[in-house]
Amino acid sequence: MTTLTLSDARTVVTAAMTRAGHTTTEAEIIADHLLDCELRGLSFGGLARALSVVERIRATPAPPGPIRIVAETAVSATLDGGDQVGYLVGMRALELAVDKARAHGLAVVGARNTWYTGMFSYYLEKAAESGFAGMIAGSGPAVVAPHGGTEGRFGTNPIAFGFPSTPTPVIWDIGTAAVMYGEVMLKARLGADLAPGQAYDATGAPTLDPVAALNGAFGVWGGHKGSGLAMVVQLLGMMTGAAADPSGISDVGLFVVLVDPAVLTDAADYRRRVGAFADSIRATRPVEGGGAVRVPFDRSVARRDETLRRGTIDVPEAVAAAVRREAGLVESGEGTARG
Amino acid sequence: MTTLTLSDARTVVTAAMTRAGHTTTEAEIIADHLLDCELRGLSFGGLARALSVVERIRATPAPPGPIRIVAETAVSATLDGGDQVGYLVGMRALELAVDKARAHGLAVVGARNTWYTGMFSYYLEKAAESGFAGMIAGSGPAVVAPHGGTEGRFGTNPIAFGFPSTPTPVIWDIGTAAVMYGEVMLKARLGADLAPGQAYDATGAPTLDPVAALNGAFGVWGGHKGSGLAMVVQLLGMMTGAAADPSGISDVGLFVVLVDPAVLTDAADYRRRVGAFADSIRATRPVEGGGAVRVPFDRSVARRDETLRRGTIDVPEAVAAAVRREAGLVESGEGTARG
Repeated sequence: MTTLTLSDARTVVTAAMTRAGHTTTEAEIIADHLLDCELRGLSFGGLARALSVVERIRATPAPPGPIRIVAETAVSATLDGGDQVGYLVGMRALELAVDKARAHGLAVVGARNTWYTGMFSYYLEKAAESGFAGMIAGSGPAVVAPHGGTEGRFGTNPIAFGFPSTPTPVIWDIGTAAVMYGEVMLKARLGADLAPGQAYDATGAPTLDPVAALNGAFGVWGGHKGSGLAMVVQLLGMMTGAAADPSGISDVGLFVVLVDPAVLTDAADYRRRVGAFADSIRATRPVEGGGAVRVPFDRSVARRDETLRRGTIDVPEAVAAAVRREAGLVESGEGTARG
Repeated sequence: MTTLTLSDARTVVTAAMTRAGHTTTEAEIIADHLLDCELRGLSFGGLARALSVVERIRATPAPPGPIRIVAETAVSATLDGGDQVGYLVGMRALELAVDKARAHGLAVVGARNTWYTGMFSYYLEKAAESGFAGMIAGSGPAVVAPHGGTEGRFGTNPIAFGFPSTPTPVIWDIGTAAVMYGEVMLKARLGADLAPGQAYDATGAPTLDPVAALNGAFGVWGGHKGSGLAMVVQLLGMMTGAAADPSGISDVGLFVVLVDPAVLTDAADYRRRVGAFADSIRATRPVEGGGAVRVPFDRSVARRDETLRRGTIDVPEAVAAAVRREAGLVESGEGTARG
């Protein structure tokens, strides 16, 4: 592993994104999202993802177009993402939703024709810090089989809800697949087995082989109830105009709803009550032999605080070297670990 | 069992609700909801529930007040249910949300101070038939333990999403508890055991005893992911002003969001795409030895069609007799089965 200071990591990612064709502002938006993944210990979405972004842009013959509003009312908007990376489209969708919810108490924004929308908790944390509760759902290519089936119909379909709270927001952010796409990819690379029940091969037989799973279908989380939630996410995504089964990773559908709690109740009181309720969950008597009961997002926040105190992240040498190359920052001795 | 014609069942429930203090219009709203439960084979929410409604009203010293709008904007409203039964408050919330979503494309309505809000699919089917997609979440008294805990923090907290579709809406409607309240009550009455993992007793030990569970806590559905969803529902309910842990069954929080797909995309095309997507789920190659893959709500619709064709429902004799008594329709030979 190579140890990078947070500042160096940000610089190198921003430079790589600029060289891939983004403006400085765009590159900084992408870098902030990727760095937040690293801070929170979700390294698959950090510097390694920067490489996937660059590869995707390089592999796409047509350059991306502008992000355009294709439908709009006082409380709603639909964005055509112009095949821009989702970190940019997601932030544009969030900003539009925040503006509209600030003015009218409520907003819905859909976006399509984009890819790699990142962590929904990233957006919902910003929304909560601006005082808004919200939901984000994201549809994608049909790689997950419905409960009882063996062919892909849903994307890995994350869904998340966030709530403003004192002192930190409460955010629930899950994927509706039995296994994460990144985990299957990683295991395919390492030749490792999947857990039972996570995938089907192309013939519909259960498989532990990640390569067979990539040619077949992943399982869905949560039995028939979870399968229904995965379906809900796909239908929300389709409301943005995204296809039911987009090919590849383009045409992801992103569906954002924000609510200002102030239109329904006393907003400051609500924030305090959310905080007190989260405390009451943490204080729940645990099962015998179990640890403290967890509130979603707590672990992410603790890990980020810890990383910020340390001021550095550890990144696989090959990843660090490749991102430096993409950033045009290769010194002599390229690929040599510095940490 | 006693066999009742649908018309007789409706008459007797409407009469019982009128005698319990409702206007004819109110009684018909309640009866329609309860009869829809019977049509769909969910008998715990049908005529038996009519008796629970009457008992709750009789046991409450203060008469319910009017349903009042306590906060309102063009796209939002908060209702104080006045301790009226939830079937009435839910319909009022739905109608308000439909009116606002029709005018502005989007609406959020919260309601508190109510009880027995019924099946959310009932409301979402009406919303979908009016062209709206929607979400309803309902919080309640703390009877469900968070994942890893053994004390109640959440209600049984249903959440549902509905989508307009050709020919019938697609609706997902689940509870976030590991077991339904009604099932625990029924097993307590019958002296039957719960399934393992469904409940804790008052000391926090796992239990199969339904009476111990009623004095302890139910488990939550779906491990830590499902526990997070149960928390989300509680926080949505609290946004209506409902308490985090309402005592008894009053002060349930009902949270309704409706979206007109037309503000985001072509609504007629969306309805067709939802229908085609549901068909593609039904056509998924099943697991070996498995039946056809199910789409949520299909089974309810099929059961209702079947009951409507038959024109009658079967109700336990004791239930039928008790509802007739409440309706003031007792003939000589009270309690004798007619069917």
